[in-house]
Amino acid sequence: MIEDVKEYLLNLQKDICSQFEKEDGKATFIEDNWKRQNQNNSSGISKIMTNGKVFEKAGVNFSLITGDNLPTSATNLRLNLKGYSFSALGISLVVHPNNPYVPISHANIRFFIAKKNNENPIWWFGGGYDLTPCYGFDEDCKHWHNTAKNACQDFGDDVYPKYKKWCDDYFYLKHRNEQRGIGGLFFDDLNESGYNNCFSFVKNVGNSYLKAYLPIVQKRKNILFGENEKQFQLYRRGRYVEFNLIYDRGTLFGLQTNGRTESILMSLPPLVKFEYMRKIYNNEEQKLYDHYLKPRDWTCTT
Amino acid sequence: MIEDVKEYLLNLQKDICSQFEKEDGKATFIEDNWKRQNQNNSSGISKIMTNGKVFEKAGVNFSLITGDNLPTSATNLRLNLKGYSFSALGISLVVHPNNPYVPISHANIRFFIAKKNNENPIWWFGGGYDLTPCYGFDEDCKHWHNTAKNACQDFGDDVYPKYKKWCDDYFYLKHRNEQRGIGGLFFDDLNESGYNNCFSFVKNVGNSYLKAYLPIVQKRKNILFGENEKQFQLYRRGRYVEFNLIYDRGTLFGLQTNGRTESILMSLPPLVKFEYMRKIYNNEEQKLYDHYLKPRDWTCTT
Repeated sequence: MIEDVKEYLLNLQKDICSQFEKEDGKATFIEDNWKRQNQNNSSGISKIMTNGKVFEKAGVNFSLITGDNLPTSATNLRLNLKGYSFSALGISLVVHPNNPYVPISHANIRFFIAKKNNENPIWWFGGGYDLTPCYGFDEDCKHWHNTAKNACQDFGDDVYPKYKKWCDDYFYLKHRNEQRGIGGLFFDDLNESGYNNCFSFVKNVGNSYLKAYLPIVQKRKNILFGENEKQFQLYRRGRYVEFNLIYDRGTLFGLQTNGRTESILMSLPPLVKFEYMRKIYNNEEQKLYDHYLKPRDWTCTT
Repeated sequence: MIEDVKEYLLNLQKDICSQFEKEDGKATFIEDNWKRQNQNNSSGISKIMTNGKVFEKAGVNFSLITGDNLPTSATNLRLNLKGYSFSALGISLVVHPNNPYVPISHANIRFFIAKKNNENPIWWFGGGYDLTPCYGFDEDCKHWHNTAKNACQDFGDDVYPKYKKWCDDYFYLKHRNEQRGIGGLFFDDLNESGYNNCFSFVKNVGNSYLKAYLPIVQKRKNILFGENEKQFQLYRRGRYVEFNLIYDRGTLFGLQTNGRTESILMSLPPLVKFEYMRKIYNNEEQKLYDHYLKPRDWTCTT
């Protein structure tokens, strides 16, 4: 199972990076192969693009970790797996565009196997993707969520709504009473209906990410913007930092497993502004808070 | 007891802010009086200076929180106080200077009282201060630590070494295997030898902060610097963000008690750069990691 998933993820990583390079037209990804041995064995391939024309920073990580003791952040439900040995592999990406009108995007796919003594191994998938605009567009939100919905459709009508809600619940900054973005899909502990079925679903999600994101990039990357829009973007990126360092389980899992810090924190924005009691300067900024950062059904046709 | 401490802290806040304004010569503090009622009652006075000549951002917070249920982050040792009602008051400040040659400084003094039913209330103090340079100077480190040591001296020879070590242990970024800065003092759960004695000690610490910091500011604020030094400062500020959001108990306590987010996160730097695998560009940068970010005894005379 691990080899299958690994092959898929490495191909997905390649595909996403080459599409991003094509889209950017200027910068290319650098690649770091790394390996660490301590209480856990981990290795990975980190790919990062910086100072592109379109992408100010884009990181696409693959990692494979094995250890003797599954950290609690690995799973949402399986709190009975303490003391299990485990293998975890995944791909995780975050894109911070230059243009404030192009939203930040994040995607992740992960696979876990946990074992103890002679018991049967327990496996599960997790993953999803979500979008974080500074300046929103209804049609982009609809496209993003409809693409996510289509990716889920073959697996039952209840799948998209369930994972959409999970995404809204997860990407929430409690201390701000604010969503991180407009959501998407989030799932965890997935092992219903057998491995093949789950893996198919996960591949559907993985393969739909570029279809969801690239059209939005293409539509917004040439919108003219000035210093005010850039300042708002730098400020809003602060929320991304707050979420990732305070709440994000993937970040926590990485740090708890003595992961490679530089790869884990690749998700942080290149430049960020923290401002006390920042005013809302115009209707576009206000609309982000009132309209886009409230969970809503973006797939209805009206 | 609460009224005594409150009076002292409010005076200290005033004093520190007026000295900072004098030192800066351009910017002044704005003041926000705030009050919140939810599961905890909290109020405070937040003072913040931004875009000064010397201080890019300086925040000096006073807050007073009462609640029915002491959060675990309130105390290091007293894990048996779950379910106690509590009052907590404190002052917390962080200074982010413009000039990369002027170190960031942080100071905090806090006082807790916890009560349950008819039991005697339990009280304790915590606090300290620490310094975070980008570019270090041995004489500054010596001055900082000698001032801290002097503040402790009347209370026994073992006080400074104990709280100095505690500070080194606390301000440590495990995921980087790196100290946050050159340390100073950190103490918690202090209630030995009676309230009067503890309060005297705490006042000594509070009153020594400006003596420790201002001479360093004055000595370094006019050093010429260029874009390279500013870039290194923006990068190093990232470590401050990582520490405060991942490890800092004060931040966690604030967020757990539904505190005022804007005041809690006033500690974050105004502008920050996160960079993947940043190179070390020169000997001065290298010296920060090799010489200053290693715990050492700065009070010896050699």
